[in-house]
Amino acid sequence: MNIALIGFGVVGQGFVEALHKKSMQLQDEHSFSAQVVAVTTRSRGALYHPDGLDLQALLETGGGPLADYPDTDGLQRDLSTMQIITESNAHVIVELAYSNLETGQPAIDHVKAAFNASKHVVLANKGPVALAFAELNALAAEKGVQFLYEATVMAGTPSLQLAQQAMRGTTIFSVRGILNGTTNYILTRMEAGMPYAAALAESQEKGYAEADPTADVDGWDAAGKVLILAGALFGKTLTFDDMDVQGIAHLMPEDIETAAAAGERYKLIAEATPDGGSVKPVRLPVSNPLAGVGGATNAITLSTDLMGDVTLIGAGAGKLETGFAILSDILLIHDRTK
Amino acid sequence: MNIALIGFGVVGQGFVEALHKKSMQLQDEHSFSAQVVAVTTRSRGALYHPDGLDLQALLETGGGPLADYPDTDGLQRDLSTMQIITESNAHVIVELAYSNLETGQPAIDHVKAAFNASKHVVLANKGPVALAFAELNALAAEKGVQFLYEATVMAGTPSLQLAQQAMRGTTIFSVRGILNGTTNYILTRMEAGMPYAAALAESQEKGYAEADPTADVDGWDAAGKVLILAGALFGKTLTFDDMDVQGIAHLMPEDIETAAAAGERYKLIAEATPDGGSVKPVRLPVSNPLAGVGGATNAITLSTDLMGDVTLIGAGAGKLETGFAILSDILLIHDRTK
Repeated sequence: MNIALIGFGVVGQGFVEALHKKSMQLQDEHSFSAQVVAVTTRSRGALYHPDGLDLQALLETGGGPLADYPDTDGLQRDLSTMQIITESNAHVIVELAYSNLETGQPAIDHVKAAFNASKHVVLANKGPVALAFAELNALAAEKGVQFLYEATVMAGTPSLQLAQQAMRGTTIFSVRGILNGTTNYILTRMEAGMPYAAALAESQEKGYAEADPTADVDGWDAAGKVLILAGALFGKTLTFDDMDVQGIAHLMPEDIETAAAAGERYKLIAEATPDGGSVKPVRLPVSNPLAGVGGATNAITLSTDLMGDVTLIGAGAGKLETGFAILSDILLIHDRTK
Repeated sequence: MNIALIGFGVVGQGFVEALHKKSMQLQDEHSFSAQVVAVTTRSRGALYHPDGLDLQALLETGGGPLADYPDTDGLQRDLSTMQIITESNAHVIVELAYSNLETGQPAIDHVKAAFNASKHVVLANKGPVALAFAELNALAAEKGVQFLYEATVMAGTPSLQLAQQAMRGTTIFSVRGILNGTTNYILTRMEAGMPYAAALAESQEKGYAEADPTADVDGWDAAGKVLILAGALFGKTLTFDDMDVQGIAHLMPEDIETAAAAGERYKLIAEATPDGGSVKPVRLPVSNPLAGVGGATNAITLSTDLMGDVTLIGAGAGKLETGFAILSDILLIHDRTK
């Protein structure tokens, strides 16, 4: 299987590292082998070799200029991203480039171009799934190609594979989760007695929160994941305007203490149902499996007809963890197309 | 797809109920349709119709004599279980009959006969997987048929599908879990201040514990699941004699209190690694996701290289829940053979 990476930041490097480490195991256990034939970046150059790039040499560029990748016979450095999507011998386009959550561009155009070239797409990038799910899903179906995006919710923790594969046959009534690690870390620290501002500063020191933490603490990052889950699980097109989105910045230490005294715990809960979605702080009894999820960990609870509640807890971010999500989607494509 | 059920107790009825409820949804969403062509029981008769039995009429026998199922053209009532396994037009044999955990019989013979007749097997019955995993797995591979047993660990909560499908590509170092609902219920009640004997009596009243609770409270039920996980995830053949198996009957209210005072909680933890397995009460910090699992719920944590720890929490028993496990395995066979 030939793979092209659009973007080569932390997640792209995590994926290449996972693939490189695991290539023998994947060959032995799943008869799976893959080449990365192309990498493109916005400002650090591009590489294309129809026989595959050297993964070790690629990792050694370390997120620096791709000019550092050694010259070999047949290597091309001058193709544009669109040329690589449409003209390369890649079977799978992995879209990892930055895209903003307002327009979803340029990723949406990349995904459409890939589908129109009959290529499968794997996304780590929330924009296209959050903003253009129905259109992209329909186009993928029309072209008979796969459209997978496990990395967009809980990194490699298989939240979508659980809902879309393992729980097939159940009817899912709702999905509720802790889908933003930064806010969960802050709430966990506040419960240990730290004021909001200090907990936020600590989460920035640890690299969980961005310098501008608005998207996390005001709930918008989690809301983007609600859009994805609504589309993926319920075929429901939501926009940010359709949702009640609240963050955690208004929570006071007294609120946390009052909840604790009542045997409850505040969590920023993202919810999608067939009727809509929301993100807001919710007081959960400590016996709720989501209440026990501490630190930067993520979790999701599916409420179903045949199985009641099923909860999955795991990493929600991380280089190898998100890289694994890409690998996992590519293995699904391998299964479905062999 | 034609299905034969060996055994028609609670789980068999749960499966037929799930299939009956979901047949339209399965057809629409997964292009899946199935007939139950045969049902055999030890003492309540047998039914075989190559065109499929009527599911509603089957459910109306309610676990009573199959003689109550109405006569129709082409219905045969006189086939033995072995005849149904080898001579019917079933593609999948679902083995649900009682088998003891010492010999695994008669289920092991049923499974072998099915494989030799080139039929797939789905098991709800722990015996064959716990006691003859390597042999049965090799025979299934040789015959090119599927051998699935999701129901044997955590009912329909997709513990095996998580480990064997969704986490493919990771290396799993260990699996630890709460795999016996009865003991977890008792420990949860003891933590609320109830003495062991009273908590056991309450769990019997609620139908979680058997009249003879030995297999649960002494850890043997969980140990059977460790044998299955060791075989399924690590290709490791264990026997009960290889394992340190302890139950919860020796835990005193003081032990529980001492743990609580230290911010910890006793759980009966079943563990399998590539090197072996064990079942024993372990004091977990309350921040561990397994510590938050209360009542009769089950849970499993996979420790992996790429993804760290991933935890799945859900029902570990129940009529529809175990019926769903069978359905889920049959959907996997549908995927893999279409």
